[in-house]
Amino acid sequence: MPKYKIIARQMMRKINSDDMKQGDKLASIEELMKYFDVGKNTIIQVLTLLERQGYIYQVRGSGNFVRKHRRHGYINILEANGFQSTLQGFRLGSEMLDLKIIKPNTEVMANLDITAEEDVYYVKRLRSIEGRKFAVERSYYVKDIVPYLNQEIVEESIFRYLMEDLKLKPGFTDHFLRVGKLNQENAELLNLNTGDPTAFLESIYYLENGQPFDYSKVLYHYEETQFFIQGTNNMEL
Amino acid sequence: MPKYKIIARQMMRKINSDDMKQGDKLASIEELMKYFDVGKNTIIQVLTLLERQGYIYQVRGSGNFVRKHRRHGYINILEANGFQSTLQGFRLGSEMLDLKIIKPNTEVMANLDITAEEDVYYVKRLRSIEGRKFAVERSYYVKDIVPYLNQEIVEESIFRYLMEDLKLKPGFTDHFLRVGKLNQENAELLNLNTGDPTAFLESIYYLENGQPFDYSKVLYHYEETQFFIQGTNNMEL
Repeated sequence: MPKYKIIARQMMRKINSDDMKQGDKLASIEELMKYFDVGKNTIIQVLTLLERQGYIYQVRGSGNFVRKHRRHGYINILEANGFQSTLQGFRLGSEMLDLKIIKPNTEVMANLDITAEEDVYYVKRLRSIEGRKFAVERSYYVKDIVPYLNQEIVEESIFRYLMEDLKLKPGFTDHFLRVGKLNQENAELLNLNTGDPTAFLESIYYLENGQPFDYSKVLYHYEETQFFIQGTNNMEL
Repeated sequence: MPKYKIIARQMMRKINSDDMKQGDKLASIEELMKYFDVGKNTIIQVLTLLERQGYIYQVRGSGNFVRKHRRHGYINILEANGFQSTLQGFRLGSEMLDLKIIKPNTEVMANLDITAEEDVYYVKRLRSIEGRKFAVERSYYVKDIVPYLNQEIVEESIFRYLMEDLKLKPGFTDHFLRVGKLNQENAELLNLNTGDPTAFLESIYYLENGQPFDYSKVLYHYEETQFFIQGTNNMEL
């Protein structure tokens, strides 16, 4: 891992700790250079990354300040490595309901930009938090890119496996969110009633080269889930 | 407006047009420098902004590529300037239901980081798209920062007024999204039934200096609304 990421992780842990609060001023670039014993470019890379990840904000002419995640128990939609990092401290579970290799239907073909002949892994999982069911997930992985999945991987963390073992280089993500009513099958899986509200999140994950590799559809339990979406300097234009 | 923003806007219009599709390669930095008659730093600023706004993606060593918004009619949560830009081409309406100066309750105090003595503008609006009601919005603006609002501003675009007339410098935004059931008052406003599903979005908008100035609570019509959330290179860590 490059030096700037190691330093950024260290600073994120510090910011997440109780020592720092919203609006606290960070040490100056010079001080950070001295403290971490690195050059100015590395510190600039660290600060750019921290700002993009929503951990700090820059005020032109006066420095960098801490930005705190102000509410707990929310899923950060923009943290794509699953729920593992956002819901730290909570006991999370994944029960595999189905895993098989299939041919894509037209919806999956369109979202993964593949032909009807290509194989995809279909994964159906029931996610839980502190033993309470909170989401039903149906995901489709392009088999050309993800050649192998098994129950152990699926119940642990698919994303960790893809990034750390398969060394995939993730790029960007599109999320589509709607609200609707649960049908009977999904209501039963979530211990809810048919017609109860649900958040329906569709996500398409792309590799660094722009190729989609994962199309995922998740239905969330409306009482167990809340989302956090952090905008960084989005009003620039 | 700085030169790089003017060029970025021009390129965004081009990307949004039918001429370009997902994965199309952009001209090289040198070609863009020549075409727009500006220096390398300006083009780098343009490309950084386009990438952060989700209009392009970079592939190290091979260039910049077009990223298209693949579905229409979705609200982009991260475009904070209201719905005006995301839902271009749709006829949008805002009906003012209430506008008054009040003292904040504890919820508003906590989210806007103000004391019980400070004044806030309370605005209640019914938003519509193509004549169909799609959201009830209740917003609280710190009066110290937003000294004046009237019906014309509230039914036009509050954000445009704040940015262009008051020259506020927007910073970042926190969004909190939950799913729930509508109570009678809100169901009637949206022409739905009590107990129908709704997306409940709370947003806190901050100035560039980190000060919150707008706390907004919006209930969306579940059949009329869908959200788009674009992640850019969020898996970096």
